[in-house]
Amino acid sequence: MNVHGKHYRTIWLKPDDPAVVQIIDQRHLPHRFVIEDLTTVEAVARAIKDMHVRGAGLIGATAGFGMYIAALTAPRGSADAFMTALRQAGEQLKATRPTAVNLEWAVNRQLQAIEASGGDIETRIETALHTAQAIADEDAEFCRRIGEHGLPLIQAISQRKGGEPVNILTHCNAGWLAFVDYGTATAPIYAAHDRGIPVHVWVDETRPRNQGARLTAWELGQHGVPHTVIADNVGGHLMQNGLVDMVITGTDRTTRTGDVANKIGTYLKALAARDNGIPFYVALPSSSFDWQIRDGVREIPIEQRDATEVKHIRGLHEGEIKEVLLTPPDSPAANYAFDVTPARLVTGLITERGICPASEEGILGLYPEKREQQ
Amino acid sequence: MNVHGKHYRTIWLKPDDPAVVQIIDQRHLPHRFVIEDLTTVEAVARAIKDMHVRGAGLIGATAGFGMYIAALTAPRGSADAFMTALRQAGEQLKATRPTAVNLEWAVNRQLQAIEASGGDIETRIETALHTAQAIADEDAEFCRRIGEHGLPLIQAISQRKGGEPVNILTHCNAGWLAFVDYGTATAPIYAAHDRGIPVHVWVDETRPRNQGARLTAWELGQHGVPHTVIADNVGGHLMQNGLVDMVITGTDRTTRTGDVANKIGTYLKALAARDNGIPFYVALPSSSFDWQIRDGVREIPIEQRDATEVKHIRGLHEGEIKEVLLTPPDSPAANYAFDVTPARLVTGLITERGICPASEEGILGLYPEKREQQ
Repeated sequence: MNVHGKHYRTIWLKPDDPAVVQIIDQRHLPHRFVIEDLTTVEAVARAIKDMHVRGAGLIGATAGFGMYIAALTAPRGSADAFMTALRQAGEQLKATRPTAVNLEWAVNRQLQAIEASGGDIETRIETALHTAQAIADEDAEFCRRIGEHGLPLIQAISQRKGGEPVNILTHCNAGWLAFVDYGTATAPIYAAHDRGIPVHVWVDETRPRNQGARLTAWELGQHGVPHTVIADNVGGHLMQNGLVDMVITGTDRTTRTGDVANKIGTYLKALAARDNGIPFYVALPSSSFDWQIRDGVREIPIEQRDATEVKHIRGLHEGEIKEVLLTPPDSPAANYAFDVTPARLVTGLITERGICPASEEGILGLYPEKREQQ
Repeated sequence: MNVHGKHYRTIWLKPDDPAVVQIIDQRHLPHRFVIEDLTTVEAVARAIKDMHVRGAGLIGATAGFGMYIAALTAPRGSADAFMTALRQAGEQLKATRPTAVNLEWAVNRQLQAIEASGGDIETRIETALHTAQAIADEDAEFCRRIGEHGLPLIQAISQRKGGEPVNILTHCNAGWLAFVDYGTATAPIYAAHDRGIPVHVWVDETRPRNQGARLTAWELGQHGVPHTVIADNVGGHLMQNGLVDMVITGTDRTTRTGDVANKIGTYLKALAARDNGIPFYVALPSSSFDWQIRDGVREIPIEQRDATEVKHIRGLHEGEIKEVLLTPPDSPAANYAFDVTPARLVTGLITERGICPASEEGILGLYPEKREQQ
């Protein structure tokens, strides 16, 4: 999507030097737009681990390009030494964020592709490059399709409202910054905006890490999409007063029965949407389905992060990014990162194959090949 | 309640100089405990307007003491000149926060009492002092009774749990800092804690102004009540997982039918409590009832405050209180201060007269004298 009027993905090869991978160092957003050059596996691993990049799709794509850099920098003496170095690089990358399922998937896909390519080192490097690009392209393409499938939902509301802006509430950042392009929850929004359908996005700030206030607000603003930042407390009031037409969120993991694990607070918005008869959609690439489990509340483990993320917050003070303490220093804080929205509260799932009900039958209708896998 | 081990109210006369009213300047909490001397009507008006003091009960008590200071400093040449000055002071105080119903009530009560006392100036000043003290004492006494009426609810859960800590979630600050002592939502909690019943409070930070993280956490910590600060997004997850036994909040205005206007976000917690079968209580002195209205969502106007309160936040950085920007500078923000929780989601109202259902019949059962007033 656009930044300062120019199209960007979240990861790309440096135009005049294809040995350099470039990313947006998202730690500085929204206050600074910093592009970082990655030329070593160590730098890629650090970028993932320290969250210069984050989001399921982007983590996978970064790992894919990390393996390409590993191929570029591996010893070329023999195929064995080369592959040994690549496998070591893969382990190093996988260890950065052990729960990110796309990370392991991207590393393994690269290793298999490079192994299968056989041939000389140059061929293997070329395979690594093509595979990295394919992973990124597929991620962008899946998100683009999510946008196309979600678009008619927004169009229908727009028609019903006679062209008045469609008010969409979203939580956290399931935007293009979390993927390679388009995002998931934002993809239908960008698709509508780019076609001239008036939309307005209520951006939940998404405490404690404020991915909404920092990232979603920034990417929507850069692309020119009208939006308003709100405290996470506000959505219910807006829904009670007819100021929200639909909710779209992303998901970190969705069960085969349609229970949705997403950023903490999503469940509260789903309850308010249900109480006010407002559609609540979840947008996801099928890689976010966990085909093994059926009961999200009981079976999906919820990460607890450090209390300092609740007690402190970072922001801009006189041109510098500073961290301030919000609470009494001795007060404990708890930091549950995700919650689970039961399928009964979800109007539908927007996937790269289309929209389906949040139920096992609904999901298997789109993914019949998963019928036997559980 | 206690601060640094010593009992405080939120407003009092300076022990060695009864011409000085002392308050806690709450703007500096939780980072600094600052006591401020008030000796002029101007200083009292500024303390209310700039929120050195806040909360319905405390605003009323401060206005009461403000009228006492007005009496102390009014010209004594004639009863007329004296009363004219008092009426002017009353107008000045009422203008500070025009929507605070307790403010007008306290000023008018003082004027009537002083007028009725007749006699010489000294008698009138003494009347103003006694009336100020009576307003403060009654506020504290009503809160104390709310605590006594709410206590059995906590005792019952404690018994059911075999003495395991009772987990109570609260939103915003309806604590003693918002009243003269005890608070409303916190009163049953303090009553239980002081009697040795193990309680633990989940403190919603309450964005955007963070009254929970700043004030409720501080006052509970100072009084020794176990508590944990959480982002406002977390309560639903806690309730889904059996980690909340009951919710108690305060209210800014409650209709005669039991609809509850309270700090933005309260409605979302009430929905989650209902979805998980958890009791949701609202504690209030009867002065918070609006006997004139029946439909909270339609009839209670919701204050919209400045967007800067959402986009910026204050906290402690290297020993100094600093304000940081959280969002892109150009992103708009909306700041709705309250929402309305429909009576159907409220388990009961804890008042100074006892507990009643959140319904017109329930409320009028405790306040039969209001049956004809609407």
